[in-house]
Amino acid sequence: MPTPAYDIVIRGGTLATATDVFKADLGIRAGRIAAIGLDLPTGTQEIDAKGKLVLPGGVDTHCHIEQLSGSGLMSADNFETATRSAAFGGTTSVISFAAQHRGANLASVVEDYAALAKKGAIIDYAFHLMVANPDEQTVTQDLPALIRAGHRSVKVFMTYDAVQVDDGQLLDVLMAARSAGALVCVHAENHGLLKWMGERLMKRGYTAPKYHSVSHPQAAEVEAFHRLIAFSELLDQPICIFHVSTAEGARVIREARGRGVKIYAETCPHYLLMTAAELDKPGIEGAKWICSPPQRGSNDQEALWQALALGDLQILSSDHAPYRFDETGKLKYGPNPGFKQIANGMPGLEMRLPVLFDAMVSKGRLGLKKFVELTSTAPAQIYDLPGKGSLAIGMDADIAIWDADRKVALADNLHDNTGYNPFAGRTITGWPETVLRRGEVVVTQGALKAQPGSGRLMLREAGEATRPTGMLSPEFDPARNFGAKLY
Amino acid sequence: MPTPAYDIVIRGGTLATATDVFKADLGIRAGRIAAIGLDLPTGTQEIDAKGKLVLPGGVDTHCHIEQLSGSGLMSADNFETATRSAAFGGTTSVISFAAQHRGANLASVVEDYAALAKKGAIIDYAFHLMVANPDEQTVTQDLPALIRAGHRSVKVFMTYDAVQVDDGQLLDVLMAARSAGALVCVHAENHGLLKWMGERLMKRGYTAPKYHSVSHPQAAEVEAFHRLIAFSELLDQPICIFHVSTAEGARVIREARGRGVKIYAETCPHYLLMTAAELDKPGIEGAKWICSPPQRGSNDQEALWQALALGDLQILSSDHAPYRFDETGKLKYGPNPGFKQIANGMPGLEMRLPVLFDAMVSKGRLGLKKFVELTSTAPAQIYDLPGKGSLAIGMDADIAIWDADRKVALADNLHDNTGYNPFAGRTITGWPETVLRRGEVVVTQGALKAQPGSGRLMLREAGEATRPTGMLSPEFDPARNFGAKLY
Amino acid sequence: MPTPAYDIVIRGGTLATATDVFKADLGIRAGRIAAIGLDLPTGTQEIDAKGKLVLPGGVDTHCHIEQLSGSGLMSADNFETATRSAAFGGTTSVISFAAQHRGANLASVVEDYAALAKKGAIIDYAFHLMVANPDEQTVTQDLPALIRAGHRSVKVFMTYDAVQVDDGQLLDVLMAARSAGALVCVHAENHGLLKWMGERLMKRGYTAPKYHSVSHPQAAEVEAFHRLIAFSELLDQPICIFHVSTAEGARVIREARGRGVKIYAETCPHYLLMTAAELDKPGIEGAKWICSPPQRGSNDQEALWQALALGDLQILSSDHAPYRFDETGKLKYGPNPGFKQIANGMPGLEMRLPVLFDAMVSKGRLGLKKFVELTSTAPAQIYDLPGKGSLAIGMDADIAIWDADRKVALADNLHDNTGYNPFAGRTITGWPETVLRRGEVVVTQGALKAQPGSGRLMLREAGEATRPTGMLSPEFDPARNFGAKLY
Amino acid sequence: MPTPAYDIVIRGGTLATATDVFKADLGIRAGRIAAIGLDLPTGTQEIDAKGKLVLPGGVDTHCHIEQLSGSGLMSADNFETATRSAAFGGTTSVISFAAQHRGANLASVVEDYAALAKKGAIIDYAFHLMVANPDEQTVTQDLPALIRAGHRSVKVFMTYDAVQVDDGQLLDVLMAARSAGALVCVHAENHGLLKWMGERLMKRGYTAPKYHSVSHPQAAEVEAFHRLIAFSELLDQPICIFHVSTAEGARVIREARGRGVKIYAETCPHYLLMTAAELDKPGIEGAKWICSPPQRGSNDQEALWQALALGDLQILSSDHAPYRFDETGKLKYGPNPGFKQIANGMPGLEMRLPVLFDAMVSKGRLGLKKFVELTSTAPAQIYDLPGKGSLAIGMDADIAIWDADRKVALADNLHDNTGYNPFAGRTITGWPETVLRRGEVVVTQGALKAQPGSGRLMLREAGEATRPTGMLSPEFDPARNFGAKLY
Repeated sequence: MPTPAYDIVIRGGTLATATDVFKADLGIRAGRIAAIGLDLPTGTQEIDAKGKLVLPGGVDTHCHIEQLSGSGLMSADNFETATRSAAFGGTTSVISFAAQHRGANLASVVEDYAALAKKGAIIDYAFHLMVANPDEQTVTQDLPALIRAGHRSVKVFMTYDAVQVDDGQLLDVLMAARSAGALVCVHAENHGLLKWMGERLMKRGYTAPKYHSVSHPQAAEVEAFHRLIAFSELLDQPICIFHVSTAEGARVIREARGRGVKIYAETCPHYLLMTAAELDKPGIEGAKWICSPPQRGSNDQEALWQALALGDLQILSSDHAPYRFDETGKLKYGPNPGFKQIANGMPGLEMRLPVLFDAMVSKGRLGLKKFVELTSTAPAQIYDLPGKGSLAIGMDADIAIWDADRKVALADNLHDNTGYNPFAGRTITGWPETVLRRGEVVVTQGALKAQPGSGRLMLREAGEATRPTGMLSPEFDPARNFGAKLY
Repeated sequence: MPTPAYDIVIRGGTLATATDVFKADLGIRAGRIAAIGLDLPTGTQEIDAKGKLVLPGGVDTHCHIEQLSGSGLMSADNFETATRSAAFGGTTSVISFAAQHRGANLASVVEDYAALAKKGAIIDYAFHLMVANPDEQTVTQDLPALIRAGHRSVKVFMTYDAVQVDDGQLLDVLMAARSAGALVCVHAENHGLLKWMGERLMKRGYTAPKYHSVSHPQAAEVEAFHRLIAFSELLDQPICIFHVSTAEGARVIREARGRGVKIYAETCPHYLLMTAAELDKPGIEGAKWICSPPQRGSNDQEALWQALALGDLQILSSDHAPYRFDETGKLKYGPNPGFKQIANGMPGLEMRLPVLFDAMVSKGRLGLKKFVELTSTAPAQIYDLPGKGSLAIGMDADIAIWDADRKVALADNLHDNTGYNPFAGRTITGWPETVLRRGEVVVTQGALKAQPGSGRLMLREAGEATRPTGMLSPEFDPARNFGAKLY
Repeated sequence: MPTPAYDIVIRGGTLATATDVFKADLGIRAGRIAAIGLDLPTGTQEIDAKGKLVLPGGVDTHCHIEQLSGSGLMSADNFETATRSAAFGGTTSVISFAAQHRGANLASVVEDYAALAKKGAIIDYAFHLMVANPDEQTVTQDLPALIRAGHRSVKVFMTYDAVQVDDGQLLDVLMAARSAGALVCVHAENHGLLKWMGERLMKRGYTAPKYHSVSHPQAAEVEAFHRLIAFSELLDQPICIFHVSTAEGARVIREARGRGVKIYAETCPHYLLMTAAELDKPGIEGAKWICSPPQRGSNDQEALWQALALGDLQILSSDHAPYRFDETGKLKYGPNPGFKQIANGMPGLEMRLPVLFDAMVSKGRLGLKKFVELTSTAPAQIYDLPGKGSLAIGMDADIAIWDADRKVALADNLHDNTGYNPFAGRTITGWPETVLRRGEVVVTQGALKAQPGSGRLMLREAGEATRPTGMLSPEFDPARNFGAKLY
Repeated sequence: MPTPAYDIVIRGGTLATATDVFKADLGIRAGRIAAIGLDLPTGTQEIDAKGKLVLPGGVDTHCHIEQLSGSGLMSADNFETATRSAAFGGTTSVISFAAQHRGANLASVVEDYAALAKKGAIIDYAFHLMVANPDEQTVTQDLPALIRAGHRSVKVFMTYDAVQVDDGQLLDVLMAARSAGALVCVHAENHGLLKWMGERLMKRGYTAPKYHSVSHPQAAEVEAFHRLIAFSELLDQPICIFHVSTAEGARVIREARGRGVKIYAETCPHYLLMTAAELDKPGIEGAKWICSPPQRGSNDQEALWQALALGDLQILSSDHAPYRFDETGKLKYGPNPGFKQIANGMPGLEMRLPVLFDAMVSKGRLGLKKFVELTSTAPAQIYDLPGKGSLAIGMDADIAIWDADRKVALADNLHDNTGYNPFAGRTITGWPETVLRRGEVVVTQGALKAQPGSGRLMLREAGEATRPTGMLSPEFDPARNFGAKLY
């Protein structure tokens, strides 16, 4: 048998998976991992990783890219700037949204987003089918067809006037996903309560950015989780709850999982590493940190860490939602808007991994293997991203080489187009220095090496997370409901 | 001191209160209880109660009388027939609804209902302010004014197209009640889910009455309880959850009460003594038993009994909602309607006490003192009905004299105007034979003795059940929400 | 019918039961309540109660009287001093202990205590059968026989070297009580943990009285509750958990009651109105407040109040355990003992009602009716004390007349023989001025009027609290355990 | 760089870790995994794995080998027969017990067991320090010293007369483990209850083997879990709960983990794949299946599977406890003993992996990656076994090559010395055909290839599972306990 030839050998590093940490060389051939071992033969290209960590590239399954918001605001990033930023942060795969608006045709929407991504994306990407117009055509035809075509996740909002689905529509979407085999991701907050609270605050003159956090009571999240879980349980359709932000929300998820409801859930760095105090800055400055749900308290942070440790939450995403701090974004309605008029969202694609590495690996909370699991392996496996999320033979050579000791003072100099960094001012330890996507060096020595359009669309097979449990609720069980067949 | 003179002495009976059971005579003067004792002096009128039970008259705090439903159907009973029926069943006080419809003025609505009741009522009555049009005028002016005028309870529906309030409106009503001091009663089922399920069933041809029960999944009740409780807890406003029907619903209430949420709750005889099997009758016959929420399973019955024993539920009401089994009522949309077209509701004012007495006293479940407590004392005290609900000196002489041994085969011969009895065919033990209202014999020997219009309106002071607990949620606590004052 | 003649009429007061508060006269004949009403005819004796509250006499179901402790210490009170003290505090019935020690014969023990009580008691009394020697004779013969003779409650300790029963013995006692029909009361703390903790503290030099509270971790109570409840549930035998002191303990009880376990429970004034800080006094002074379980934190107080409100705890007793602060009691082992050498217990019979009245009525927590219920009606009914605990016709005229407005500065001048008052230094509002026992004035104007030996033994029928629920655990259910019949 | 030389290449198989499943060759050098990749160069020895699964060798962390039971019975297996059997079943590492008995010196005990293992063991082994004599010397000196020497796990029994520790001793052991850094494993059942129940059954003539299951009520497990967890939480010392058998036990663990208690837990194949019905065989035959805790019901099986899926249980062990079905073992007390006289335990080392593979992989419950995780990776990592439990570069080449399609009819022909197979009669799919230990073929083609004594002792560093969480309970927190320092 001839000596294998590797296009690239990453030599001498310490590799980490969700399960193991060990020293080895890693050989890449034709964009895939071909060997992991000691003393591998020399590759066409050699990358020295001595003293470095060699990790699977990050997988960020919640980011808004080149997306028109419900209220007509364009996100600051297009696919090029967003995925460039992601790559600089060690992330090599994203799932963004094919975002249907009221009145729009979902199939066309997917085509449109796919065209934009094809042109701009530097790393690989997939789409969540975001449904805001769940009419007959969408629910019974387009959605199932698109799911079966490989878009195996759906997104709905329970709040935001422009995009929310009501309870009946949510049931329709869950049922459609069930029939075709998709995971349903949900922004779960109680719409009526948010509106009521926001208007009450504004009317009483509490308009500063910090009141945004007051306008999203914890009860809005907890209530919506209960409601969503009730529907998921009733229809036996798996869900992924986006951006869990509260201790009580995490508790509700734990309880439901404990009785067998199939729930996946994520949280984001800003819920783990920020509190509502972040919004309390002079003038309108706090607007930069406005996102929904808002940052909470330190007890919530603790509970979220604990929920990650226990497996109640399985994914760490960014919820990248970039708006510039100017009239094209946060300040669209003037230089001094009330919090209700300020676009919700922060950039996160680039900072997600570095700030989490600092917290989890450098500071030691949960550790390196769990870092890899929560930011790469688990999201890739839950969303069935082919060839992503681990260092194993045959997988895409999506790799980030980290200097675990490098200290970086964060500033407003991200590679996206938002213009500010919500983590600016902090100093962290650990940095992704070289990033490969399918065996191609995308970032190294602070420079981008890959071209816009080099990213690929990932279509997906139906996997574990898309399958019902088979536990029929009484109402859907013909043996107990006078024989009605409702699926 | 001269010998006291009693208008009436009820002699030789066994009296029961929520606390005690004992033999004594009971003396009435000027419509009130003036003495309870052994060997009382002879009264102007003597009523022989030897071998009989002397109980406080029943208090039924949930009944629909002379009310136009949201869908435009008039209830079969006017105040005369309804309160006549109640009296025959041992009940001497009712709270019915001043039912606002969309577009209507709440103050006028109350006047209208008060006029009807004044003309027809045979027993004493109060009103729940039913709000279906929670506009600015209603919420900020009429509702607080009417509450302060003595109508200390409000009713809202979370479902039914014609009358439901949405989440924001529900919050408005809770806040208005909080500011003025009222208990908020709620029909809590998830509207979207009921609609979705009902339409799905109808579309698939499951139109028989029994499918009504399938169309109200248990999750619809449980979800709505969670949501309602979340709002109640957030605003620290006491609520009364109407007609709890499920084990899981009762569990959710217990859990919330355990953490300090101020929740009162009721259930009704048909949830304790019937199951969904009742609806499964040939043809359209099952329509008679259609009510909302529907009857459930035997495990739910057990859980409800347990919840009553534990104090998680405190009230047993009838939810009297009378519609004739003809074209004026249940069959308004033809002789063979789908379950979605059939008016929801059953008569209950007359049967409530006899069937519960049979179950609780004759068959021994929970016993006589708890029967008095749940059907009379607790509802009177929770709703602050002045002078009602117990046998104590100075209270209104509202009294029912029961033959605990009398066996009665129930038939369709009630004294209301519904024309059928949902408990017909059962034989029960125990019957209220003589009923006094404020010292006046209303029913005796199967005959009505009092006149329409002899009942009185009960206005109410703010009592224990209308008071917040003082436990501020973080969002409403200026110490923790950047100083915002939201009450 | 002739005018009734009353021996005594208490005139013009405001009466309160667990259910009602109302103005009325109260007529007594032959030691019993003969009438309650307005304008009762003049009695042989008239007691003016205008402006006063007329309440049922207190029932204190947990007190140690004339009892030799396990470690050989005699309680400071005999039946005369203890019941005198109780009467001054408005209490007219007590249950104390017939306390078996290792090697003793239970039947003889009961005879001995009955003789002491017959001689000294001023108010009525019953006995808990305290079992510390659960041998074959005790468990299979004496205990069932004594229960059937009317001693319907049993007491065991899960801790204290001299008296504790081990798990197997506890099961034996529960089974014996089940067969004969008694309620089993338990001091539930984990013995091994208390010992381990106490010795560890002493060894490390933490010997001051305040470390007593550290030596009884909350976990010792919670663990023992879990264990006891497991046994109660397994054998389906009702229990009464004595002196609940922790929030978590109350939570465990609530949870178990919620799933149907038949649990009664009490707490005591010192857990509601004191914290562990009470022990932190200079020198050995804190010894006066040493009791077991110890006083806890303010969050525990809140939780206990809440548990009383919710019905999870139903009884307020004193746990009167009197030891003088001298060499006959607290300081038996010298003037400066380590906390492990200090007798556990405080006097409580006299202060129980006044301090609770102050907290519940004067300061308004839970209110007057609940005060009556928790301190008189419920304990009388749970323990089946005949004719006790309420104001109803035919019941014993055990009555306390309270001045609700009287302010009293508490001092060390109680009428027992302990010599100190753990509540000394506080000023409270509300005082029982005149106390009647079976129609005889026992205390009035600060003077004792009744004779030692005038109290009577109360024998009891098996009542509600002694009955199993009938819910068989799988291990005891022949249908599921291979046919074994284990009862 | 020269072509690497491999001693062995396992070629063409499908490798699985807890995270990934992929096709690759695996190269071994000097007993360790040196490379995993496509087209590896030829090894000195080639093993064809085409169409086969290549898994990490099993790690069985609960087995009794060459151990004298508390009641003086020698286990049927010595290290040679036990580890031979393990190897045939695909297991390459075990942790057995250095079992102290009353009066014995723990250090000597460890020496003795180490000598036996050194002589007989065919696979690698470590010891749990089993403490039955927790005297001063053991707890303060020997135990900490042995832990620090690399025996990082301790085992105690809460039941069995001959070996149980009482609550105080359990606290001592937990505290000793805490100070030195060890995980404490516990057989948790309530001793008093087991004894009481067993004697009651025997006395009533229920002596057949099946009554063994009745004699271990579920409450005995649940109670002991509560107690153990209370102690673990109080002292903040991690525990591993052995052989969880009940749904309620799993629920209690989940609840405690949810509030942050550091609990690991295992279950065994016989709780997942057998019920108590197994014991119900003619005559004494059922004795073969007697083990403690006993097999339970099918609802318990479901709950245990769910707990494994949710991560509440992390380990699948065998609890190998081999006694022959003859006078040397199960029938020591005659041919027809009562269930109390029958040795508890079944062989499991050999069957553990095949029956679990069949259930999890062939039948699909939880799947291949979870199979690897629960039977190999997680136990190795929790117990800090160096170089074990995964397929990664540098790890010991402990590998089992499975034919996933091979059907095997199980019979009583295991390679241990027990003489029967509790799973005999079942047909399973999937079989480990070739097994390597540190790169040496131990079993292939049904033959043993390695020598007794070739196994090695594994000493262990303190790892994650031995570390307290740092959450101090109030009693141990000087800031809240009057300054007492108790660690």
